[in-house]
Amino acid sequence: MKKENLDKLLEQMTIQEKIGQLTQLGGEFFQTDNQEITGPIYAENKISEAEVYTLGSVLGVYGVENIRKIQSDYLEKSRLKIPLLFMADVVHGARTIFPIPLGLATSFNPELARKTAEIAAKEATAAGLHVTFAPMVDLSRDPRWGRVMEGTGEDPFLNGVFAERFVRGFQGDFDEEHLAACVKHFAAYGAVEAGREYNVVDLPENKLRELYLPAYKAAIDAGVALVMTSFNTINGVPATGNKWLMKDILRDEWGFDGVVITDYGAVMEQVIWGTAKNAEEAAQKALSATVDIEMMTTAYLQTLEKLVKTDKKLSVLLDEAVRRVLELKNRLGLFEDPYRGATLEREKSQVFTEENKQVAYDAAVESIVLLKNDKKSLPLKKADKVSFLAPLLDSTDLLGSWSWKGDVTETESILSVLTEKECCPTKEADKLVIFVGEKSAQTGESKSYTNISLTQEAIDLVGQYADGKQEIILVVFAGRPLDLSTIADRVDSILYAYFPGTMGARAIVDLLYGTQNPSAKLTMSLPRSSGQIPIYYNQYMTGRPTLTENEEYVSRYQDCLSTPLYPFGHGLSYSDFEYFDPSVSTDENKIKVDISVKNRSTVDGKTTVLIFVRDLVATTARPLKELKAFEKIELNSGEAKRLHFEIDSEQLKFYNFTNDYVFEHGQFEVFIAKSSEDIIESKIVEF
Amino acid sequence: MKKENLDKLLEQMTIQEKIGQLTQLGGEFFQTDNQEITGPIYAENKISEAEVYTLGSVLGVYGVENIRKIQSDYLEKSRLKIPLLFMADVVHGARTIFPIPLGLATSFNPELARKTAEIAAKEATAAGLHVTFAPMVDLSRDPRWGRVMEGTGEDPFLNGVFAERFVRGFQGDFDEEHLAACVKHFAAYGAVEAGREYNVVDLPENKLRELYLPAYKAAIDAGVALVMTSFNTINGVPATGNKWLMKDILRDEWGFDGVVITDYGAVMEQVIWGTAKNAEEAAQKALSATVDIEMMTTAYLQTLEKLVKTDKKLSVLLDEAVRRVLELKNRLGLFEDPYRGATLEREKSQVFTEENKQVAYDAAVESIVLLKNDKKSLPLKKADKVSFLAPLLDSTDLLGSWSWKGDVTETESILSVLTEKECCPTKEADKLVIFVGEKSAQTGESKSYTNISLTQEAIDLVGQYADGKQEIILVVFAGRPLDLSTIADRVDSILYAYFPGTMGARAIVDLLYGTQNPSAKLTMSLPRSSGQIPIYYNQYMTGRPTLTENEEYVSRYQDCLSTPLYPFGHGLSYSDFEYFDPSVSTDENKIKVDISVKNRSTVDGKTTVLIFVRDLVATTARPLKELKAFEKIELNSGEAKRLHFEIDSEQLKFYNFTNDYVFEHGQFEVFIAKSSEDIIESKIVEF
Repeated sequence: MKKENLDKLLEQMTIQEKIGQLTQLGGEFFQTDNQEITGPIYAENKISEAEVYTLGSVLGVYGVENIRKIQSDYLEKSRLKIPLLFMADVVHGARTIFPIPLGLATSFNPELARKTAEIAAKEATAAGLHVTFAPMVDLSRDPRWGRVMEGTGEDPFLNGVFAERFVRGFQGDFDEEHLAACVKHFAAYGAVEAGREYNVVDLPENKLRELYLPAYKAAIDAGVALVMTSFNTINGVPATGNKWLMKDILRDEWGFDGVVITDYGAVMEQVIWGTAKNAEEAAQKALSATVDIEMMTTAYLQTLEKLVKTDKKLSVLLDEAVRRVLELKNRLGLFEDPYRGATLEREKSQVFTEENKQVAYDAAVESIVLLKNDKKSLPLKKADKVSFLAPLLDSTDLLGSWSWKGDVTETESILSVLTEKECCPTKEADKLVIFVGEKSAQTGESKSYTNISLTQEAIDLVGQYADGKQEIILVVFAGRPLDLSTIADRVDSILYAYFPGTMGARAIVDLLYGTQNPSAKLTMSLPRSSGQIPIYYNQYMTGRPTLTENEEYVSRYQDCLSTPLYPFGHGLSYSDFEYFDPSVSTDENKIKVDISVKNRSTVDGKTTVLIFVRDLVATTARPLKELKAFEKIELNSGEAKRLHFEIDSEQLKFYNFTNDYVFEHGQFEVFIAKSSEDIIESKIVEF
Repeated sequence: MKKENLDKLLEQMTIQEKIGQLTQLGGEFFQTDNQEITGPIYAENKISEAEVYTLGSVLGVYGVENIRKIQSDYLEKSRLKIPLLFMADVVHGARTIFPIPLGLATSFNPELARKTAEIAAKEATAAGLHVTFAPMVDLSRDPRWGRVMEGTGEDPFLNGVFAERFVRGFQGDFDEEHLAACVKHFAAYGAVEAGREYNVVDLPENKLRELYLPAYKAAIDAGVALVMTSFNTINGVPATGNKWLMKDILRDEWGFDGVVITDYGAVMEQVIWGTAKNAEEAAQKALSATVDIEMMTTAYLQTLEKLVKTDKKLSVLLDEAVRRVLELKNRLGLFEDPYRGATLEREKSQVFTEENKQVAYDAAVESIVLLKNDKKSLPLKKADKVSFLAPLLDSTDLLGSWSWKGDVTETESILSVLTEKECCPTKEADKLVIFVGEKSAQTGESKSYTNISLTQEAIDLVGQYADGKQEIILVVFAGRPLDLSTIADRVDSILYAYFPGTMGARAIVDLLYGTQNPSAKLTMSLPRSSGQIPIYYNQYMTGRPTLTENEEYVSRYQDCLSTPLYPFGHGLSYSDFEYFDPSVSTDENKIKVDISVKNRSTVDGKTTVLIFVRDLVATTARPLKELKAFEKIELNSGEAKRLHFEIDSEQLKFYNFTNDYVFEHGQFEVFIAKSSEDIIESKIVEF
């Protein structure tokens, strides 16, 4: 539809029709059951049938049949026949499920991440969807919080790189095989206090800008179509009514002109928070913050008509919001084809294909971290007598949370892959593989835990076999960094598998047997205990760093080290990489870093080189290390490559105490590293 | 000394002499050993003998003999004969040790706190001291942090009330039996991240002002003579070089014209933090922030002379700082009597007197919390067969950290009090008293712990006897809120004794036997686990509060309640208090609250009534409850009293999102309560 026609359409709309465009309700209002429920159902959302046919979008309905039925019924009965938008959570795959994002991030392979998003888009659009509520890019330093599984970890730079690729993967060129992405949850939801879901977020502005905002910004810069507000407050004001966040920063500062949608029920939650006294004030605050679509509550529907009639400013805001929604529909081509080419045929032929599963397999292989392999117990050899312990061996709970259209009955278990591979458990084994960890249902939204240890049952199980007679190989399923401190010393090898998705079992078996070579590296620190939280690699020196052990009056715990059990960037390989000829130099415009890497083993493999920087002296204290660049390379046996990195002053800016974004000349220490704690070379440069 | 003479003195001073006044070093520079060491010794502090005789103050030397010797030697050899200031940590008593502040706060008896400070001042001045580094008023919500023992808990209002009384107690009218107080640690040291000592502090300004600053402000308003800078950064800038904090807020906004002294070594710690490149920049930043005295490092001594010669502004700042130090000396009367009347005779006769010990006893009695008494196992009766378990029974480790001049050899153990009382342990007991908890040395500065449970040994000990055959009474020694969750259900009664001081054993025995009646109430929540941290009573509603158990998608943990094990204000009595005729009303200027309390038991007792307010709707989310008033009353058996409280709009102001301090008209819920969770009456008023 041309702009002129959109203008005309807007002119024709009644106030009620405008408000309808800003309201999103679930499929139950359209007489369908096949939908996802991700929040409380608000019984008070009784709306008239007439109102239903003014609504602008539908939450959580999936499948061509459902969606076509609702759309055609709506187009028939609504006055202006503006097609509905269908939105749902396709987070890490639609029918083909990829590793959870926290796992996928460990691949340090953003291009692979882009591919997974592209396939998810293809499958979701084939099923009729128009918008996915992804990527979730909330930085978090708190493994108690269940939603860390949806994000890519603790680093602002890495999160930004993945945010950008996810957006490009989902949206592509906006053709019918791509959908609109919705970056969430704006902002800083990952900093909920005490890791307790839906809690407050309190952050000084410079930390908010430096750590939490960059990934959302990266998504905006990549052209993301929608932004979702977060449930939390920021320094006392719920994000959904936070004009500073949504208008001043998101729209004015960053230039975002897409659609802002609330999270589930968040407009009315302002009343519960106590920052709005009723639906009217809640609606007024959200619209004033330029929040376009209200999800699953009806404050706009109930109150905006009266409000805009008496408030010219709100009336303008209403029109702007409606225009943004219509523009999104137009950009998606819905006025030309309200079904966007979704057919039963496409839904059958384009989903869960071998091609898609191959990417899921590749992603799983690159998203499982080998944390420990002291005795080189892995890979398992043909000659090894290996036993696999029963618990979880036949589990198909490998998809993780937010995989509602993934089908566990189509998911292979470790046992089924092993059987097929004819490498079944033997009784008199010298190596024992034990599977432990979380269930999918223990992770994701609302799944906050104070205790992030393995269960006592799992610890006891390992203890039972950890007598030195056998080499113990632990495979951990997890949606968060778990506390492995009681168990890590008692096993010989650990594969941290997260929830690896549709092809997870096969990837795990192939990694165990060395058909594949681990290359993943942690993007969120594994703590030694809940008592260390928050813990993250980009800590500060403090005024009293620990220089030697057992010092008094230094910044440490009396009963625990200050370092994580496994740090950011940690991850082993079956290959043996040699690093040589490092070089760090500067010219006027950049810091240049070079390093050669050689695979001196007989095993082909991949590895990632990380470049960290420390700003040694600044007006505001700077972290001990900040990731500024990384590259993943593939090296066949005997192969060598030389890597080159460049860092410019823009990348060395930071938010100082007065919240200005500044570059300060001075000394920088540059680290070429395998992980945040495993440094190949460091050099101080003036820049 | 008259002001004119002070002016003249200042005129006579060389730059070196001025800088000397701003430098504080330890007794080792004055050839004495009897001193307290509270931080690293900086070997680089080699200064010349000439420089020693320009110094302005001495850290950590105690005792008339030492102090007189150093002072007289100094006065003899220094050119201008400006008496030295002697400063040290007299935190909760000098020789007579009172309960640790976290314990003393549970008395909810600020007047008692004032008395303890007054006695501490009397003893410390008798020993020659001029300044104590107390009170410490750092609000904290993190029991991992060892220094919570020095503060009065988690509530900003209560902390302010105690701050004011401590200052008045120490300083009195500045006569020779009182000393100058130094409120610390400015600011927000109690919010160190992850409870790890000396770590960063990141806080939005409105939270900083609302929660952390009020107690320091209360001390300033009470006329405190000195302020100590904290070790931490605030949002990236170390407090010691933080002009916004020290100059803009403390001096300009609050009008503080006393002396600002750094914490131990904090000027040079800026170099370690990376916010100053060398001693010169560290000194320049501290002096620019109007920090007067540098403790235990010599950046001022090494660099200020050069700096002030080229920088007029710094030269003015130097003079202002020196003037403040001289004014403090003058206010203390040191120019008239550099010994302030401290004599060996006073030091002998005025310390550890029966009178002082009586206050220590009263304070201990009111500072031990009866957390649980389900079967009314306490008080012990004459007829009871009681056994006392050995561990800690003969311990004299009852003084707590920061009691360096307390003498454990003069401290009675529980066993010695019991023996004297002829109520020795019997073997076939039906009640068993078990003593568990922390050692003093596990608490206080640098004693951060990730695990705040009792030791496994202690848990096992209780488990061994908790078979239902005997009633178990647990007495807990602690410098922090410990996690008692594994043990609380398995015992019948719990007395939480903190470190009760010189007279602690006697107080505990008298409370156990009912000679005394517990009246203390927690001022810092006892968590259910480390995984709940931070936890505090003045939480927020969130947008998804827990309404019923086992709801999905609400703000809770899956494995733990969101409430503490024992909340703020919790504390039982042997008396039975009845509350009646509550009334909450408003007039134009205030909210008026009335309640009658009757002791309907046969036991005389004391209790504290707490008044909380919730601002139901505001532009910035407000806590579920905020303490606004309290009163402790004594009621003999059968006695009744009517209490009256008033709350005005000033007390209902808060810092909104734009950091403005505002009162917003609207609905307020007023709670008359026994604890933050035990509400007698609540009423919503318009105000």
